[in-house]
Amino acid sequence: MSSLNRRVLLGAAGLALAGAPGASAVAKTAEAPPPSPAPKDVTRTLARYVVSARYEDLPEAVRKEATRTFLNWVGVAVGGSHHETLDVAVAALQPFSGPPQAGLFGRPERFDIMNAAFLNGVSSHIFDYDDTHLKTVIHPAGPVASAILAYAAMKPVSGAEFLNALVLGIEAECRIGNAVYPNHYDVGWHITGTAGVFGAAAAAGRLMGLTEQQMVYALGLAASQPVGLRESFGSMNKSFNPGRAASNGLFAAILAAKGYTSSDGMIEAKRGWANTVSTKQDYREITEGLGTRYETLLNTYKPFACGIVMHPTIDAAIQIRDQERISPDRIARVDLKVHPLVLELTGKTAPKSGLEGKFSIYHAAAVAFVEGAGGEKQFSDRAVADPAVVALRQKIVPVVTPGIAAAQVDMTVTLDDGRTVHRFIEHAIGSVETPMTDAQLERKFSDLAEGILPDARTREVMGMCRSLRDLPDAGAVLRAGALA
Amino acid sequence: MSSLNRRVLLGAAGLALAGAPGASAVAKTAEAPPPSPAPKDVTRTLARYVVSARYEDLPEAVRKEATRTFLNWVGVAVGGSHHETLDVAVAALQPFSGPPQAGLFGRPERFDIMNAAFLNGVSSHIFDYDDTHLKTVIHPAGPVASAILAYAAMKPVSGAEFLNALVLGIEAECRIGNAVYPNHYDVGWHITGTAGVFGAAAAAGRLMGLTEQQMVYALGLAASQPVGLRESFGSMNKSFNPGRAASNGLFAAILAAKGYTSSDGMIEAKRGWANTVSTKQDYREITEGLGTRYETLLNTYKPFACGIVMHPTIDAAIQIRDQERISPDRIARVDLKVHPLVLELTGKTAPKSGLEGKFSIYHAAAVAFVEGAGGEKQFSDRAVADPAVVALRQKIVPVVTPGIAAAQVDMTVTLDDGRTVHRFIEHAIGSVETPMTDAQLERKFSDLAEGILPDARTREVMGMCRSLRDLPDAGAVLRAGALA
Repeated sequence: MSSLNRRVLLGAAGLALAGAPGASAVAKTAEAPPPSPAPKDVTRTLARYVVSARYEDLPEAVRKEATRTFLNWVGVAVGGSHHETLDVAVAALQPFSGPPQAGLFGRPERFDIMNAAFLNGVSSHIFDYDDTHLKTVIHPAGPVASAILAYAAMKPVSGAEFLNALVLGIEAECRIGNAVYPNHYDVGWHITGTAGVFGAAAAAGRLMGLTEQQMVYALGLAASQPVGLRESFGSMNKSFNPGRAASNGLFAAILAAKGYTSSDGMIEAKRGWANTVSTKQDYREITEGLGTRYETLLNTYKPFACGIVMHPTIDAAIQIRDQERISPDRIARVDLKVHPLVLELTGKTAPKSGLEGKFSIYHAAAVAFVEGAGGEKQFSDRAVADPAVVALRQKIVPVVTPGIAAAQVDMTVTLDDGRTVHRFIEHAIGSVETPMTDAQLERKFSDLAEGILPDARTREVMGMCRSLRDLPDAGAVLRAGALA
Repeated sequence: MSSLNRRVLLGAAGLALAGAPGASAVAKTAEAPPPSPAPKDVTRTLARYVVSARYEDLPEAVRKEATRTFLNWVGVAVGGSHHETLDVAVAALQPFSGPPQAGLFGRPERFDIMNAAFLNGVSSHIFDYDDTHLKTVIHPAGPVASAILAYAAMKPVSGAEFLNALVLGIEAECRIGNAVYPNHYDVGWHITGTAGVFGAAAAAGRLMGLTEQQMVYALGLAASQPVGLRESFGSMNKSFNPGRAASNGLFAAILAAKGYTSSDGMIEAKRGWANTVSTKQDYREITEGLGTRYETLLNTYKPFACGIVMHPTIDAAIQIRDQERISPDRIARVDLKVHPLVLELTGKTAPKSGLEGKFSIYHAAAVAFVEGAGGEKQFSDRAVADPAVVALRQKIVPVVTPGIAAAQVDMTVTLDDGRTVHRFIEHAIGSVETPMTDAQLERKFSDLAEGILPDARTREVMGMCRSLRDLPDAGAVLRAGALA
């Protein structure tokens, strides 16, 4: 074949192949390994569901969980808004922004909706403190809520419509995530950014009133724009991913709404998304039980601003402190029976910064006894240098113990008078089994917003989140949560 | 582990792991298959080259080929600018565009540079008539030139600096493409959109004057945004891909320039780009021979607006017509000895539209004899309905013949007086071996621009492309090629 090769010949002819009846199948089989049979109409089935499912048909439990998801997300987006990551991104993008269509939580700047979606999405993931769909490690709200709230700030949308779109976006991304997890995540993709684009496109496209065919194309354009690799964890690039997923999904929906086309089967086709980004594809996860099974119900919220592996210990410490009224200076020793991962991941005995504190089970236990919490403030440079915390962390004695799961801890506190107090945590607070209460979510929100929004404004925004379904205009949440 | 799983524990802890010395390696080995050793500093080596290579050091042949690449690219970008695809995309994006920083070839609208980069990139790929790096099937100019020309329209850049950045962008994308091709393409990625993001980020970042570390981050943010799946071929989504690669690369460079961070090894790390998107990685393709071996020299340009598989036949027909002064109405029969792919891909005997004409070897041969060309006009609805072409295509007799390569054709024309004329094409015009001449590239440009730009303007723009290295302000090319 001389300097040309088979792929060149096929690739070059690719533009119009799908337009030439009969030619397509030939071209595709000419170069491929034997295909595995893919179910038909996966993309279309999902699209049809997204454009037709009604708020009225959502079970009350789903409405409630989506409302909690939204409140938690607004809180973390406000909380991240003054981080250096946001300062950098805002400065970089300001010269290129379109009309001031949407604001940023906790900040005075206004951007066009695609840039606003990106920036609020970044903000909401900076502390890694947002919601988690534990089955897939997807953080569902970031891509979806960032996209549709920016849209709603420009074009009024009722709270009920908004809540419905939020649920449909979460269903789209988590179901697509289920279809390819864990292989897709294992190979290196940051699944929040890859599946998230679909969620953002679906939810935004729903609010824009796309037809079924337009939604098929929006999902196809979303499939063309996956975001994020796990290698970037630990840098600003991690929070980039949900932000860019939000703006990419919005971009896809905006184009599709005007008639920009894609393929009809971008998720399931042989050279489509699932086969390209994963060695596992289970399309039933996408198409089965639509409107009856809700991934939204499996969403969880972190009570503590650190890796989940330390959550049982912090939970136990706070329970003992508050329920037994134990003063930290009376503690002689704290014995922890833990899973091996606890020491592998969080074994730092003398953390020097707030960030290092997130990798110290000694600090986490000590600060929880001293301050009764495990939020961002407890993982600050101040907290790790607090003499009371430093003194207590010397007395924390974690021991890897067979039979203790990573989600568990067995804690025994010995007081200076020899008395002991014991707690066994089966499911830490924040798990599916022991979810954070509404009051706990609101306290988390208030803590995150402190120093960023005035207290009265924080209460106002929380109130709007709580009553989202009744708002005549969901975009009001962003207007209230932004600074003038 | 109850409802938590190992990945949740690791994923949730991911944010800060890289910030905690020692913890990272533990977290990564805890869930992974045995790693294959990756060479060090691939991303950094490429970044260092891109920020330091000088125009003065480019071999003359490279400057010349890059100039031809640019001229060909401007021509196809002008040519695609009135297609429905552009109309849709322009209408969709106008409400969200930032300041009028850059124009669109062949159109009056102005956009911010990221939207302009997207739109010119789409325009340049609509006819699938742009340049091709045959080793990887990458269309190199689209992502790179679209990004840097938009930037240059906003911020003056000399022609020499621009040409240098164009070369560096092409080197980045084609070398990265080489490293993962063919496996990466085979699995389903549209490699122009995936590798192209790196080219756009590298070239734009160079013009912005990024430091080596900022360039490392720009490449990392580029790695986080691959674009395009082969399943979309045949829809508007195909030309979306180089356009979005251009705007994503620009987005990456703009953020990195202000200090947005990524990982240091996003291309080569275990959970980085190459391992995530391909089962083959050859990092020597990226790091070896920088500044001495140029992929830019392997770029090719299509003389005909159809799949490369029909190019030898069109080339032979035009040679016979022009050199032997054969009138089409004297032709009794045309025998073609062809490779099997020619009939597999282009076997339509009676095409009904210009698009279907692209899949008919019968039409391609006939129209080449009648009109002496194979441009977009020869694959129009008019051309396939032309009675002279329809009459002649009945007389085209392709026969699959062993020993004929896909890049070859053996053509024998029998005239109505029984005389025969023969041509064997070893390397069709447009191949690396038989490149289009400068004059042929300019004729292609003029044909594409006809009816879009006034003739005098077309000549002016071509002249600017030809003398790109001497322009004081490269952005002038876009200002001249846009409509007032």
